[in-house]
Amino acid sequence: SYFFWTFGVHESGFFGAVDVDSGKSVLFPPRLHPDYAIWDGKIHPESWFKDVYEVDEVHFNDPDTINETLRNLGAKQLLLLRAENTDSGNVLEPADFKGKNEFPFDTEMLYPIMGNLRVFKSDKELEVMRYSCKVASEAHKAAMKAVKPGLYEYQLESIFRHVSYYDGGCRHLAYTCIAASGINCATLHYGHENAPNNERIMNGDLCLLDMGCECECYASDVTTTFPSSGKFSEKQKVIYNAVLQANREVIKAAKPGVRWTEMHLLAERVLLTHLKAAGILKGDVEEMLNARIGAIFMPHGLGHLVGLDVHDCGGYLGDALPRPKEPGLKSLRTTRTLQERMVITVEPGCYFIDVLLNAALADPVKNKYFDTERLKEFKGFGGVRIEDDIVIWAKGNEILNDVPRTVEEIEAFMRK
Amino acid sequence: SYFFWTFGVHESGFFGAVDVDSGKSVLFPPRLHPDYAIWDGKIHPESWFKDVYEVDEVHFNDPDTINETLRNLGAKQLLLLRAENTDSGNVLEPADFKGKNEFPFDTEMLYPIMGNLRVFKSDKELEVMRYSCKVASEAHKAAMKAVKPGLYEYQLESIFRHVSYYDGGCRHLAYTCIAASGINCATLHYGHENAPNNERIMNGDLCLLDMGCECECYASDVTTTFPSSGKFSEKQKVIYNAVLQANREVIKAAKPGVRWTEMHLLAERVLLTHLKAAGILKGDVEEMLNARIGAIFMPHGLGHLVGLDVHDCGGYLGDALPRPKEPGLKSLRTTRTLQERMVITVEPGCYFIDVLLNAALADPVKNKYFDTERLKEFKGFGGVRIEDDIVIWAKGNEILNDVPRTVEEIEAFMRK
Repeated sequence: SYFFWTFGVHESGFFGAVDVDSGKSVLFPPRLHPDYAIWDGKIHPESWFKDVYEVDEVHFNDPDTINETLRNLGAKQLLLLRAENTDSGNVLEPADFKGKNEFPFDTEMLYPIMGNLRVFKSDKELEVMRYSCKVASEAHKAAMKAVKPGLYEYQLESIFRHVSYYDGGCRHLAYTCIAASGINCATLHYGHENAPNNERIMNGDLCLLDMGCECECYASDVTTTFPSSGKFSEKQKVIYNAVLQANREVIKAAKPGVRWTEMHLLAERVLLTHLKAAGILKGDVEEMLNARIGAIFMPHGLGHLVGLDVHDCGGYLGDALPRPKEPGLKSLRTTRTLQERMVITVEPGCYFIDVLLNAALADPVKNKYFDTERLKEFKGFGGVRIEDDIVIWAKGNEILNDVPRTVEEIEAFMRK
Repeated sequence: SYFFWTFGVHESGFFGAVDVDSGKSVLFPPRLHPDYAIWDGKIHPESWFKDVYEVDEVHFNDPDTINETLRNLGAKQLLLLRAENTDSGNVLEPADFKGKNEFPFDTEMLYPIMGNLRVFKSDKELEVMRYSCKVASEAHKAAMKAVKPGLYEYQLESIFRHVSYYDGGCRHLAYTCIAASGINCATLHYGHENAPNNERIMNGDLCLLDMGCECECYASDVTTTFPSSGKFSEKQKVIYNAVLQANREVIKAAKPGVRWTEMHLLAERVLLTHLKAAGILKGDVEEMLNARIGAIFMPHGLGHLVGLDVHDCGGYLGDALPRPKEPGLKSLRTTRTLQERMVITVEPGCYFIDVLLNAALADPVKNKYFDTERLKEFKGFGGVRIEDDIVIWAKGNEILNDVPRTVEEIEAFMRK
């Protein structure tokens, strides 16, 4: 992702350098074996890459090419990118090449600078992300339109993929599709190889689709929740509207200068208020907030930066606070203060997860907030998540995706 | 693939052991973190895995589980699988676990035995492969039916994927789809990230689709070639019929006891005969065969074993001859003698590849076989490949896929 962000190169095996003083850029494509022309396609000359990628120099990467080029450019020190993903812990190791040790080099300086630059999207990046989200929106709508009881969950995934690719030209997914129905909606990362969206959708189920595609490597990340029958039950409406209001309140409040951690707590506050109104919880909402009751229903973070990576870099750079320790908050992929041109997901959810509810009911500090009889009515409910990708702007945030969202919109759309 | 072949386990992170003397089998699933139940789904008990995978024992893999279990089983020596892929050179490293060094172990014995066992498919494996090929056939037919000039190549890929998944339940592709049109059909491994099936299909183009899916990890690998307009031109018929006859002659001749290298030469002989009849080549066919003229038009091998890997293991085990050095033949992924229950692709092709033709025309040993004026009429032609997956049987081979193949069948199918 860092290499693509810097040079826009789709092919693999490239090296690249930028002279920090002059801005001069150099690409080193791999020297291809002549048999490439038989098996893989045309072997382009250096000039072709210069034109396509708009760099100042291109040299095929023979064993001494990089160190000779750097010497010719008068390089005194090399800044090599070493980057660590603060979610997965994966490390991007610094580039290795012959003659690297002839130069003094630093592997610390670039990461906080480049990681932070990637957080703020340029106009051109936003154009690509608008397209990626538009394609994902159309693909979600196609799945919503096609659903009916009796289909398998993966058939909705297949529709999403097909519309993204056939109509939108997006070959790759941004992440493994989550196409959950019924109780599976309470499994936050459903859809992986051990639970591959392979259950049958029943009448009366909610479907929760968390699916996004990639356009020019930029991810979209959208979640829709809707009833398989086309009509929400009364209980489904209660939970759905709680989550929708949390989503909307956050989008309204997420202005430049506001810390994301506060937005997470705002979402919890809205959810707790609704759950109290529904009779599932009782007591003071602020007290419940402090007792981390919200994290029982929404154990994941409210949202994350999105860009070339679906969980984009930079969430713990800049003015970020250290990762919180409390339930729910500890899952936040960023604790930064919002600024213009950040693109972030707003994805509150409300789930009935047996293992968390059972632990809460066994905990005297927590169980007093629950009406256990009313709670029982929601056993096996599954869950709801509503996820938008937004750009932070001072004049009011921009929602990049466009799908039916209110109960009325969804029911009308599915009726059509 | 070796692990799946042995135990049928879909989940990742497992270890497994079989007592060679008694046949007793043990699985060691990973001990999952309790949070798995929140994020990823139900945590199954050991008994669940015992029932699903029909093994004798299941023990969650805590640090000393494997070595203690092996000691309890009275293990005197460990046979650890180390396998090398004879195509890619990739190595499957032997399993590593705490206490492994307490036992004498061998890493050589299993590979030739297990690699060779995988070559011969059981009745149950064949049932799965029949299904995988049936799904791929339906998906190819859907693409053939939908094609029209003006579509992008990737739209045919998207149709293939969607039909495989939505209708066939096959989530994964067996390999990167090749969806080539026009001159791109001459790029043998078109479709990769540098050439991602992103050109427009023109009227008069041939389309060459080499696409397969996976069912329960078993690959299908099928290639169809057909005209975008629904009607072959006269020149297209000449090349298509040459390749089709090569395919059919090989399927007839590929009996148990016949060496695959001979089948490759048979395919070349049929192609050369057709190219001579078409006036592109001149001279004696056997002489041309020795001068390796066939490899100019078909630089790849005739076919390969297929199974849990699309290029399956075992091609250079058993009675295989060392990999040949000659053009074309050196690309063979197996040189074995055919036996019953081998599943192998038959995929002759004929391509007009500038870099190979130019080299041949500049070579006095080779250029005398060419009618250069007639050859010019095929410049930019692209190519044709026809690929079936067959099971070798003494009573006559079984073709696992089912797609329209003759010019007449294809034109009739596309007209419908």
